[in-house]
Amino acid sequence: MTVKEERDTYKVLDKGFVKLIDFIGGDLRAAQSARVSFGGESKGEDRDKKLLEYLLEHEHFTPFEHSVFQFHVKCPIFVARQWMRHRMASYNEISARYTEVKEEFYIPQKFRVQDAINKQGSVTSSRLDDGPLLKEYDESLKRSFETYKKLLKSGVAREMARMVLPVSQYTQYHWTINARSLLNFLKLRMDPHAQYEIREYANVISEIFREKMPWTWEAFNKIHVSR
Amino acid sequence: MTVKEERDTYKVLDKGFVKLIDFIGGDLRAAQSARVSFGGESKGEDRDKKLLEYLLEHEHFTPFEHSVFQFHVKCPIFVARQWMRHRMASYNEISARYTEVKEEFYIPQKFRVQDAINKQGSVTSSRLDDGPLLKEYDESLKRSFETYKKLLKSGVAREMARMVLPVSQYTQYHWTINARSLLNFLKLRMDPHAQYEIREYANVISEIFREKMPWTWEAFNKIHVSR
Amino acid sequence: MTVKEERDTYKVLDKGFVKLIDFIGGDLRAAQSARVSFGGESKGEDRDKKLLEYLLEHEHFTPFEHSVFQFHVKCPIFVARQWMRHRMASYNEISARYTEVKEEFYIPQKFRVQDAINKQGSVTSSRLDDGPLLKEYDESLKRSFETYKKLLKSGVAREMARMVLPVSQYTQYHWTINARSLLNFLKLRMDPHAQYEIREYANVISEIFREKMPWTWEAFNKIHVSR
Amino acid sequence: MTVKEERDTYKVLDKGFVKLIDFIGGDLRAAQSARVSFGGESKGEDRDKKLLEYLLEHEHFTPFEHSVFQFHVKCPIFVARQWMRHRMASYNEISARYTEVKEEFYIPQKFRVQDAINKQGSVTSSRLDDGPLLKEYDESLKRSFETYKKLLKSGVAREMARMVLPVSQYTQYHWTINARSLLNFLKLRMDPHAQYEIREYANVISEIFREKMPWTWEAFNKIHVSR
Repeated sequence: MTVKEERDTYKVLDKGFVKLIDFIGGDLRAAQSARVSFGGESKGEDRDKKLLEYLLEHEHFTPFEHSVFQFHVKCPIFVARQWMRHRMASYNEISARYTEVKEEFYIPQKFRVQDAINKQGSVTSSRLDDGPLLKEYDESLKRSFETYKKLLKSGVAREMARMVLPVSQYTQYHWTINARSLLNFLKLRMDPHAQYEIREYANVISEIFREKMPWTWEAFNKIHVSR
Repeated sequence: MTVKEERDTYKVLDKGFVKLIDFIGGDLRAAQSARVSFGGESKGEDRDKKLLEYLLEHEHFTPFEHSVFQFHVKCPIFVARQWMRHRMASYNEISARYTEVKEEFYIPQKFRVQDAINKQGSVTSSRLDDGPLLKEYDESLKRSFETYKKLLKSGVAREMARMVLPVSQYTQYHWTINARSLLNFLKLRMDPHAQYEIREYANVISEIFREKMPWTWEAFNKIHVSR
Repeated sequence: MTVKEERDTYKVLDKGFVKLIDFIGGDLRAAQSARVSFGGESKGEDRDKKLLEYLLEHEHFTPFEHSVFQFHVKCPIFVARQWMRHRMASYNEISARYTEVKEEFYIPQKFRVQDAINKQGSVTSSRLDDGPLLKEYDESLKRSFETYKKLLKSGVAREMARMVLPVSQYTQYHWTINARSLLNFLKLRMDPHAQYEIREYANVISEIFREKMPWTWEAFNKIHVSR
Repeated sequence: MTVKEERDTYKVLDKGFVKLIDFIGGDLRAAQSARVSFGGESKGEDRDKKLLEYLLEHEHFTPFEHSVFQFHVKCPIFVARQWMRHRMASYNEISARYTEVKEEFYIPQKFRVQDAINKQGSVTSSRLDDGPLLKEYDESLKRSFETYKKLLKSGVAREMARMVLPVSQYTQYHWTINARSLLNFLKLRMDPHAQYEIREYANVISEIFREKMPWTWEAFNKIHVSR
């Protein structure tokens, strides 16, 4: 891994990462594409910033489609399952039909209890005795993986052996998404209703977004905080 | 379950199903939508059939977008993962964050071995001693589910406890897709390169397609066999 | 045209119309699809209405994708151009390459002046002397159409002769769109910033939406008025 | 205009152009994204070329979605209308509501006659007396533009005055599209059934495609010629 690559790779959870592979466009590209509509020229930074705010405020989202992010993502399957519901994006994922899967599972630092208010969510609690629970969890994953290896060794095809593997298993994919669709992803997946694990990814991606399109990010946050 | 519902529900694999909830359009609708282009009237069944063939042959697919199928699907998670890569469709899936999951896993009748030619695929073989392998497989799933229940009982949130569950677990969803996108799904998922388990679903869905749009189905097959 | 068809056909502008061809789904379908997620049953009308409101409020839009509207639309080309920017929908339009176009142009009842505040918009005004302006406008369209006919008569291909025809010319298409995407269309095209002519179509379509999905429409309006 | 920009701008028809604004990805990116699936490394140029061929041959199109082209396009409205039916792409177009339109119309070098075989198409012919026809055509456009100016001068809003303008008028837009969707565009719009005018644009874009993704382009052509 080169220095450049290291700088763009963000660690997430215990074994995952998000890495920006490539990027096209930016704040000025969005402003330019918007200005195609009225055939005008840029009138400086301040006006461009105001323009981006106006666009987001009035839900004129198309100018943001001309900026595109490409990521390499490594995350647990249950996170990938939530992620891939975002259809305005491109995915190429590692296939457990082609390759033997490594023993890489998500091990949380501690468990959370069911949230009494938000029925789909969870909250941290001192009520849980994490030691024995994590041991139980860990052993279950280990036994699943042992069965996987045994089935493979007996000649069972990879696409069938993997059926015993849990959704905490890590997977990887290339992900290409435009800024408009990514803002939607971030809004939904940084939301407190989203599961903690995918929120961790969304938070990291929002950092990358902010770095690449700072004016858009600022405008987006201003609008969503004010609502 | 009413008689009507039973008739439209097709069992797939050991515990899965595909059920047609609703349908709009049909062969004539496709022909009508195509004829909007040249402002003409239907000139009888034979001409309509020829028109549908012409459209598919020349990749004029838009007239088929006005026919829409709605299904209720129950399938293992690893099948759903392949399925949901089809983005030109709508999905609403049961959430293991909201509800406690039942002990329902896919148990194959026999295992297949790795295909020597098609590196991602598998083939049946008398080489495997299925008895002990299926026992091993079954026990692994049972142990995973026990851990799931223990974690829940200890107060761990559903969205975390489910992380031990294997991808052979059954899930359910509503699926809405237009005929154009469905033909693409069927072409890719009935292909011999597709995994046997999803092919079983695709085969059943092709029956439903043929029943609802027989001319389109016939034309589609004629073109793909001739290639 | 049958009575049934007449009832579903709404006249718009001077020569246009919107006609509902078919519909699938509805308020209950949206509620059912949402409830797939938490595996629950309907608990009556009041709870279903609240559920729909909750979904729209929290931007859980996918349950509305399972309801689909099909329309036959006749509108001027400049309206169709704004309309077809909505990409999450299916279109089959009459082709001026296949068929000779009829002399059907949009003639406004009166002209509007440039809006001093909203730079893209227009406002009614008593300042304009509509009589001579409409005559001028009408004659221009007539001359364009004469040239079209002359070119055709001289043997020029339809696809070239039509290049003289103005964007006020009426066109027709089949349009299929799900309720989620249609709500987005209505929000943008009923907005005071939208051009009057497309707003007339959006208003009529909103009537049809309200008739087919009254609870969703009520919830949608409640949220957008409150913002 | 800088030298770099000039090099990337291709003139099309009498007043139009296609200009590549930006590009991300390429042949190697497509190969890399495909190889994510089987977790492998590149084994040299020959193998990568074969991989790209295999992908296109078997309709595994997703790896090509990670390469994205951005263009600035200037073309007549009737061409833009065909173009924008491609929905898997992003558009920002100049608005005749915001800005006054210039007198820029497409003037063909000669007219074509209706094709006797291909009912939607046209063919060149010595039968037509182009001189008087082009004069007639040109005068019709001039008169339309005069009316446009008169209406504007009388205070009619831009969005209404433009209703007299013909579909031969030039428009402009930013267009962002991934390589998968662009290949589909090129297949349909370079086809002999497509109108000559949009084919001229498609031909130029295919040059740009070939320059940026030469292996993909070669593989694509090999497959389509062999069919």
